[in-house]
Amino acid sequence: MYAAKYVGRGAIAVVEVEASPPAAAEVQIAVAYTGICGTDLHVLHGAMDTRVSVPAILGHEMSGRIAGLGAGVTGWAVGDPVTVMPLCWCGSCPACQSGNSHICQQLNFVGIDSPGALQQRWNVPAALLVRLPKTLPLAPAALVEPTAVAVHDVRRAELVPGEAAVVVGAGPIGLLIACVARIEGARVLVTEIDWLRRETAARLGFDVLDPAAPGAVDQVDDWAAGAGAAVAFEVSSSQAGLDFALRSLAVRGRLVVVGIHPPRREIDLHRVFWRELTLAGARVYQRPDFERAVELVAGGGIPTETLISRIEPLDTAEAAFRCLESGQGVMKVLVKCGSDG
Amino acid sequence: MYAAKYVGRGAIAVVEVEASPPAAAEVQIAVAYTGICGTDLHVLHGAMDTRVSVPAILGHEMSGRIAGLGAGVTGWAVGDPVTVMPLCWCGSCPACQSGNSHICQQLNFVGIDSPGALQQRWNVPAALLVRLPKTLPLAPAALVEPTAVAVHDVRRAELVPGEAAVVVGAGPIGLLIACVARIEGARVLVTEIDWLRRETAARLGFDVLDPAAPGAVDQVDDWAAGAGAAVAFEVSSSQAGLDFALRSLAVRGRLVVVGIHPPRREIDLHRVFWRELTLAGARVYQRPDFERAVELVAGGGIPTETLISRIEPLDTAEAAFRCLESGQGVMKVLVKCGSDG
Repeated sequence: MYAAKYVGRGAIAVVEVEASPPAAAEVQIAVAYTGICGTDLHVLHGAMDTRVSVPAILGHEMSGRIAGLGAGVTGWAVGDPVTVMPLCWCGSCPACQSGNSHICQQLNFVGIDSPGALQQRWNVPAALLVRLPKTLPLAPAALVEPTAVAVHDVRRAELVPGEAAVVVGAGPIGLLIACVARIEGARVLVTEIDWLRRETAARLGFDVLDPAAPGAVDQVDDWAAGAGAAVAFEVSSSQAGLDFALRSLAVRGRLVVVGIHPPRREIDLHRVFWRELTLAGARVYQRPDFERAVELVAGGGIPTETLISRIEPLDTAEAAFRCLESGQGVMKVLVKCGSDG
Repeated sequence: MYAAKYVGRGAIAVVEVEASPPAAAEVQIAVAYTGICGTDLHVLHGAMDTRVSVPAILGHEMSGRIAGLGAGVTGWAVGDPVTVMPLCWCGSCPACQSGNSHICQQLNFVGIDSPGALQQRWNVPAALLVRLPKTLPLAPAALVEPTAVAVHDVRRAELVPGEAAVVVGAGPIGLLIACVARIEGARVLVTEIDWLRRETAARLGFDVLDPAAPGAVDQVDDWAAGAGAAVAFEVSSSQAGLDFALRSLAVRGRLVVVGIHPPRREIDLHRVFWRELTLAGARVYQRPDFERAVELVAGGGIPTETLISRIEPLDTAEAAFRCLESGQGVMKVLVKCGSDG
């Protein structure tokens, strides 16, 4: 079988490897599709070389079918369509002990800290499986993982139906958050500096705004009936996006920090105090988020056709990374690792 | 009657003024004690001259007795002991309309935006009155207002009994937060760079820590059973205090921003994301906070004797400000405006 490996220095090599049988409590998955995300690109660019063991098989957004069962695995059968919630936690750290195992302090994020789904056969602990409906095609099913991120982010916002929500940044996660928030009853405004992404958001039926346009923040107030938004999602990972998100909030508004901000950021804490705002970090997902994401993708609420920009065969997996890194107009790129059927 | 007025250029003048009868829906209060707070000092130092109309009668922490009733006031009698919740809201802005009138966008904070309690007779809308128990002496009763701030802050933290809470900054508000958090069932650690304030906190039975000492943050982890604190209150108004508070939090910890931070502050948002932390601004109080504060002060849970450093007669009110501004070892300074009886 073949696997696509990050081999360092910005390169992906597709190589033949021997498939090993699943260990006890594991299943072997015949991977159908694996999505590439921004974090995978960071790895490719060498930004996570201290964390990733090179060569590394990346990939944590996927769909496939069970191809084999390790000893002791029950409740699953060969042929079952599945996706994987790629989190292995320790069970004993303070995060795990407080019911937050998804942000375990020794988290093994499968596909980064251990081998991922950019291969034809993938062995994973059966405990990580998430069942897919038989009626759901496997290409859109590869979007369950990023949808689960969005579900988690919206849950962290404690969104109430009817509230006004601003999404700052219209990449795949931003658009998925917008979709989930709309399904949960929010009025959604998507702000994005890139006109192509803004156009995609508009095509999906969202109100859109260029946050760099003069007076843009005041337009948020107008859009939100003079009050500002109840919720903002910072998905741009930029200082400007953060400022915009914070400035767009109504009294007692909640800002969910989704984007990754390695440098320290400046925040107008006086505004946080004055308006009694809340900022909440949101990272990955919990099992109910994943299950809800399956429902949403299977139910047609997620515009997977618009979001999947391209499907690349495993042979040319590096092209999937190059396509994503080109930016302009590209949303989600999938690698087809095996059969749909 | 006499009033102490901020007359600009850092000065307080005690002058004779004519008492006016209470208007309709107002009461006249014979003020007994008025506390001086950090905001009053800011006003004295000219930092709020754009907001305050000079000359200004300051004072919003007080106790007294009703001395006269305006037309249409019911439910109150001359002689009733009272304090005042010094917030007048507009009722129509988005904050008021969303049930957050305490942070009304046109808030009139009585004692800053309109005349306050540093006078012998004070007319206020009857709607602002808060009843005091007849058994509560009026000097400690002047601490109800800052205690209401602390009650509000602890409520914003959504504290659960048994949780570990760190209070960064042991001025009067910090110590009141520590007291309220302890009453609500928290294990409390007070961190403070000033040794005199740290000693006061220790005398009140709190665990204390010098946050500037080497390894201090790791000591918080140790103190909190290796996990970090569930809640931190930033009451120092400093970048260092903010950093310390954020760094001291456990996974899913909540930081309540109590201190005022006029400059933009740097925040490690990656930590907020990674640990799914929450930051919440907390400003003034709502009516239930005030009523709870009366209960706590009357119930003896608030160490008012330790907190009241000095009581100054109205004649020499400026000395109360000078005493507070001297810092070292001074907690709360009250001005005695009239009779206790």
